[in-house]
Amino acid sequence: MLQTIGADGGVIRFGPDQPLRLVSGARLNHLEIAYQTYGALNADRSNAVLICHALTGDQHVASEHPVTGKPGWWTQVVGPGRPLDPAKHFIICSNVVGGCMGTTGPSSIDPETGRPYGLAFPVITIPDMVRAQAMLVDALGIETLFAVVGGSMGGMQVLQWAADYPERLFSAVCIAAAPRHSAQNIAFHEVGRQAIMADPDWRDGDYALQGVRPEKGLAVARMAAHITYLSEPALQRKFGRELQRDGLSWGFDADFQVESYLRHQGASFVDRFDANSYLYITRALDYFDLAEAHGGVLANAFARARGVRFCVLSFTSDWLYPTVESRSIVRALNAAGCRASFVEIETDKGHDAIFLDEPVLRTALTGFLEAGGQVRGLK
Amino acid sequence: MLQTIGADGGVIRFGPDQPLRLVSGARLNHLEIAYQTYGALNADRSNAVLICHALTGDQHVASEHPVTGKPGWWTQVVGPGRPLDPAKHFIICSNVVGGCMGTTGPSSIDPETGRPYGLAFPVITIPDMVRAQAMLVDALGIETLFAVVGGSMGGMQVLQWAADYPERLFSAVCIAAAPRHSAQNIAFHEVGRQAIMADPDWRDGDYALQGVRPEKGLAVARMAAHITYLSEPALQRKFGRELQRDGLSWGFDADFQVESYLRHQGASFVDRFDANSYLYITRALDYFDLAEAHGGVLANAFARARGVRFCVLSFTSDWLYPTVESRSIVRALNAAGCRASFVEIETDKGHDAIFLDEPVLRTALTGFLEAGGQVRGLK
Repeated sequence: MLQTIGADGGVIRFGPDQPLRLVSGARLNHLEIAYQTYGALNADRSNAVLICHALTGDQHVASEHPVTGKPGWWTQVVGPGRPLDPAKHFIICSNVVGGCMGTTGPSSIDPETGRPYGLAFPVITIPDMVRAQAMLVDALGIETLFAVVGGSMGGMQVLQWAADYPERLFSAVCIAAAPRHSAQNIAFHEVGRQAIMADPDWRDGDYALQGVRPEKGLAVARMAAHITYLSEPALQRKFGRELQRDGLSWGFDADFQVESYLRHQGASFVDRFDANSYLYITRALDYFDLAEAHGGVLANAFARARGVRFCVLSFTSDWLYPTVESRSIVRALNAAGCRASFVEIETDKGHDAIFLDEPVLRTALTGFLEAGGQVRGLK
Repeated sequence: MLQTIGADGGVIRFGPDQPLRLVSGARLNHLEIAYQTYGALNADRSNAVLICHALTGDQHVASEHPVTGKPGWWTQVVGPGRPLDPAKHFIICSNVVGGCMGTTGPSSIDPETGRPYGLAFPVITIPDMVRAQAMLVDALGIETLFAVVGGSMGGMQVLQWAADYPERLFSAVCIAAAPRHSAQNIAFHEVGRQAIMADPDWRDGDYALQGVRPEKGLAVARMAAHITYLSEPALQRKFGRELQRDGLSWGFDADFQVESYLRHQGASFVDRFDANSYLYITRALDYFDLAEAHGGVLANAFARARGVRFCVLSFTSDWLYPTVESRSIVRALNAAGCRASFVEIETDKGHDAIFLDEPVLRTALTGFLEAGGQVRGLK
């Protein structure tokens, strides 16, 4: 079943003998999971760290992205001398189920039809993503993870890991996430989905078969979402009302730098992301409500996680998943009798601070992971 | 020049002998201004109130909308026993230049070509809107307005009136506005414009000639904007994660009530609004920067307005034009030596509180207008 491609990553294939049973009741009889690893698993298999990526992230955490040629998305946190260091940790990151960077998703070929799934792909959830990750961790021969770490949607997966596989976790780091999607979160995602589905090149999800791509709709979706990743003060500091050129165009060109920046975000996104994956993954986020799956009481989700060391981090200017959400996670962890550190990091960078040069984030992560590493006996 | 249609409104036409000279340097040689009035002008012409409408508003303030059949958009504030009462005030509201409810805009026929303007319509600004209103007020034979009143973009017009025609104002009420569009404001508008222009039925603005309408793009633009009119707590209170039906659809139907609500907002908007007008009016807002036009010092804009009584109102949960923007207006008014009342109204309704049942808003308006009315000698 295991077929690695290259020293630092690979694709694991699961066939009908090991289907991924989904929360919806459907199942995936053919599942490929694309992943990257950094560092080496130690002799007693105690140094494995799983990183869970955000909505539009992928497995290329700290190495060059094969499509964009850019450095990995979390070089601030993963690398030599960083909180997650390949010299110490065996770092794993896999593309989520429903994604478009090698793991099975709506753009994959359905082996049973020989055609891309499109909308025939089943709706997936955060628990489904986590179950697939657990299958990967199994296949890599790892029983317990030193840490599962993620921000944004990655943080939701961290919480789901704590709920579903607490016995397989030594520690868990949840950054700028929430235990459920709010009405405003859902609303922004719905705008993005409607933008994609309004694009005539979406073709009811069958664009791949028809040789087109709903690039304009996907770009608009990305632009709307991107605003929610930044804070108003950061936008003001970075762009304010600065113009692209001397003087106004008196038309609909990008007059203001912020317009040009947003257009660039939209245009570059469509080169690396699949529109149907965007639909499916935003849906998974909207469906996420960890308390609801545990009798409406969030603490119940963590009832078996008393042995896990938690670290919860939030950013003061994050209005997508604001600190109040992280506090509700910490309260539930406390109510469940779990050990939890909580740091609210002062920054004007908004939700995007997860991925940016944020020294306090690195310091907090290093402190938490080093303390855990000492208890765990990592060298 | 004056041709009224019906007792409570009409259309005033200005020809090439009275062109509207625009800030851009262009001019409109043919201008029609559609307006509604409520109440009667008193003998000494001292009771006229001009209401300035918001981005997607129109002149139908307190009477049935001719397209939707719904009541006017500000029946909370205008009507018998309301702060603006036709029994006391002669209330005027005109559709802005660039609009689509009768005033000349991009969907109007250019008399010089016999075809709709489309993108040949000149880019207009808030000062241009105000200049057109002043032409209407002139044509109605009114020298000074008892009050100019507006919220959101209407509030920006109020500020512009104070800057450009202070001698024609007795008082001015600016609700939930800002002295300039922020980077985040511009960003949200750019998303909306890109959604419209991405719609293949936009046809570079020539859709009217080609018998189509970019309804999907305009609906997406409206959905994105609508989120900014509401607060996160209001969305949570009204919708939370409530479902439309029993159980999830496991697809991309509107599962959550907030999705259904947003889709409805988008779908109903396209029945009453023109996509090119949306482009032009959002552009006017983005270009608005009252200080910039006065040497970078906002107080300079109000240097001649010392005789005007100002009332500035904001809402605690408004994140589109937050209280900090209203405070900057009040500070500039104070610095210019103007008399200004300021009330921040506690509400969770967000920017939309302007139009909703907000008793404190009515009380504040009534208090301010009655005090002014006594000084002005209104009965």
